[in-house]
Amino acid sequence: MRIAVDAMGGDRAPGAVIEGALLAQKELGIEVLLVGQKDVVETELARRSSSPTCLPIIPASQAVAMDESPSAALKKKDSSMKVAFELLKRGEVQAFVSAGNSGAMMATGMFVLGNLPHVERPAILVVVPTLTHAAVIIDAGATVDCKPRHLLQFALMGSIYAESVLGTPRPRVGVLSNGEEEGKGNDLTRAASEQIAATALNFIGYVEGRDICGGNIDVVVCDGFTGNVTLKTMEGVAHFTVAVLKDAFQKNTLSRLGYLLSRKALREAFARLDHTEYGGALLLGLDGVAIIAHGGSSPKEIKNAIRVAGEAVSHDVNRRITEVLEELSHQAGDKFPGKIWRRIRSKIETAGEKNAVEEEERKGKGDEKD
Amino acid sequence: MRIAVDAMGGDRAPGAVIEGALLAQKELGIEVLLVGQKDVVETELARRSSSPTCLPIIPASQAVAMDESPSAALKKKDSSMKVAFELLKRGEVQAFVSAGNSGAMMATGMFVLGNLPHVERPAILVVVPTLTHAAVIIDAGATVDCKPRHLLQFALMGSIYAESVLGTPRPRVGVLSNGEEEGKGNDLTRAASEQIAATALNFIGYVEGRDICGGNIDVVVCDGFTGNVTLKTMEGVAHFTVAVLKDAFQKNTLSRLGYLLSRKALREAFARLDHTEYGGALLLGLDGVAIIAHGGSSPKEIKNAIRVAGEAVSHDVNRRITEVLEELSHQAGDKFPGKIWRRIRSKIETAGEKNAVEEEERKGKGDEKD
Repeated sequence: MRIAVDAMGGDRAPGAVIEGALLAQKELGIEVLLVGQKDVVETELARRSSSPTCLPIIPASQAVAMDESPSAALKKKDSSMKVAFELLKRGEVQAFVSAGNSGAMMATGMFVLGNLPHVERPAILVVVPTLTHAAVIIDAGATVDCKPRHLLQFALMGSIYAESVLGTPRPRVGVLSNGEEEGKGNDLTRAASEQIAATALNFIGYVEGRDICGGNIDVVVCDGFTGNVTLKTMEGVAHFTVAVLKDAFQKNTLSRLGYLLSRKALREAFARLDHTEYGGALLLGLDGVAIIAHGGSSPKEIKNAIRVAGEAVSHDVNRRITEVLEELSHQAGDKFPGKIWRRIRSKIETAGEKNAVEEEERKGKGDEKD
Repeated sequence: MRIAVDAMGGDRAPGAVIEGALLAQKELGIEVLLVGQKDVVETELARRSSSPTCLPIIPASQAVAMDESPSAALKKKDSSMKVAFELLKRGEVQAFVSAGNSGAMMATGMFVLGNLPHVERPAILVVVPTLTHAAVIIDAGATVDCKPRHLLQFALMGSIYAESVLGTPRPRVGVLSNGEEEGKGNDLTRAASEQIAATALNFIGYVEGRDICGGNIDVVVCDGFTGNVTLKTMEGVAHFTVAVLKDAFQKNTLSRLGYLLSRKALREAFARLDHTEYGGALLLGLDGVAIIAHGGSSPKEIKNAIRVAGEAVSHDVNRRITEVLEELSHQAGDKFPGKIWRRIRSKIETAGEKNAVEEEERKGKGDEKD
């Protein structure tokens, strides 16, 4: 598997990015290509590796600044971002990872790759820790103004990801809202819920902010505005909580001693809370695997983002999304996506079982049964 | 000061509510009235106090269930909620606290009290801990579908509260958004920001979820949907983080010993993270002080909610809100609220200084200058 990494993207690029790429190549056995300004990348790579030819460099003369507008970024014909997306489009790499400007990533990705068939808007999927397992939030910031059917498509993509990559059987899908009762929510969540409930997804209705980490939900669906605020709130509170506790340990001699004794166990706990362990966010819905890593990514974060990219590739997430949406679209005809989905619920129990069903249908010439 | 408490409201009513009321009376020196079904409340009170007449009981024959719809609750003419709001309207108490059905609280409050002049929609204000001080989120769930001018009114109410009750000088006001750059946000946040920027408020622009607990923002303004999701996410993550750490301490003998040594310091930290310490949420914008405590409130939470009610009364928050909005409305005329606000910025620097300015103007016959 070959993955392109944007050597020019991120607050700590190119140094931390190159270090992360070296880690990934060594620890994950993934072939990594660095895309960026050749001389800069070469120099930085030589400083970090005794065999500076270990990572091929794909030259790109321009870099997109972190604060550049998406439209300005699109005008840079030879940016590392654009060159990397083109590699992906031509199939020379199977995924692309960048810690750069996320707005520019989205715009460039949509421009170069386009969306998957039947996906109208891209969505950012992030994996978050819960008391029992990992859950996903989709959309965590790609599409701010959503229609109900966009949320439906997010629900589907999130469910496929949770099942195939995270191994969650029949993922429980919920729409993030301001209360669990049906009367709660806004126009968007109410209409989206109705559409999602009509599918074969394991829809459990509304979920609240406090449910996200509780372990009883696998796929949290929301518009990109709400999702982004939620995700950043989670990061902020986790950071705050850890800061308050570290403070407490510094209180007196006893508490400092207590910390020393429990340090090992606590470190593991802090790692569990640390978002950098969970890798980058997937930009789902594009016709290619793209990962947005944190702007301030450390080498470890870059490595984890490359790992997440590799997982999405090896589980063939995009093909599965396309197949499911294609199938549903075909069966529902003009009414896609709509109440017609209810009719095919019995056929496609989950995205996972769907392939088997399709196989059967192909054998039996697949007449519509209802 | 006299405060009415809904003895029938909350998952643990009437027991925990009555205990909380007794605590408040004893520790805060506030005169508390219990509103509810007389015989039930009398029996419960007698079980908890040697002088069962210490808290007067105002009879109300009906109780609003936690899952009752607001419209069903409004039909109960003799519910504890309705009777308490009527006491408040008649001035027999200065505030009302309930851990009951929050939708019913809002509906009944709006029906009985109505809104403050120039406040179009009520908002829930909650106080949250940060690294340095306490900040407020407004609206945390009262008004799901907001117009920009509603957010403007929330910003104003939140700023007045932060300044007068929390003692924050010139509170920094921000609109919660999915990024700090001006191009971020949605139609609502963009329009609201423009309106808030045109006032005398200390507006710092967009803030992100991760800023809430960071200590660099005092008043986080948002619609009730976003605010509710955010607040519940904060609660969920704090709970999750503490659970992960408690887990870590149980890991082995060393970590358990470490916990024992640092226990005292940690308990204080956990208390700092514990939302129950911060009391109930204010239902701001009503023509009277109303507090919604958590549905599952413990006696301590009830006591803290009564404390918060007392603070809002003693700082005369509603009068200040009315004065500021009245003044602005008067000066802006038909265009209120709008760009005209910029013109009066020099006059009204903050809600706090505003009273002095008004005083001056009154002495000098207060001709409009500008």
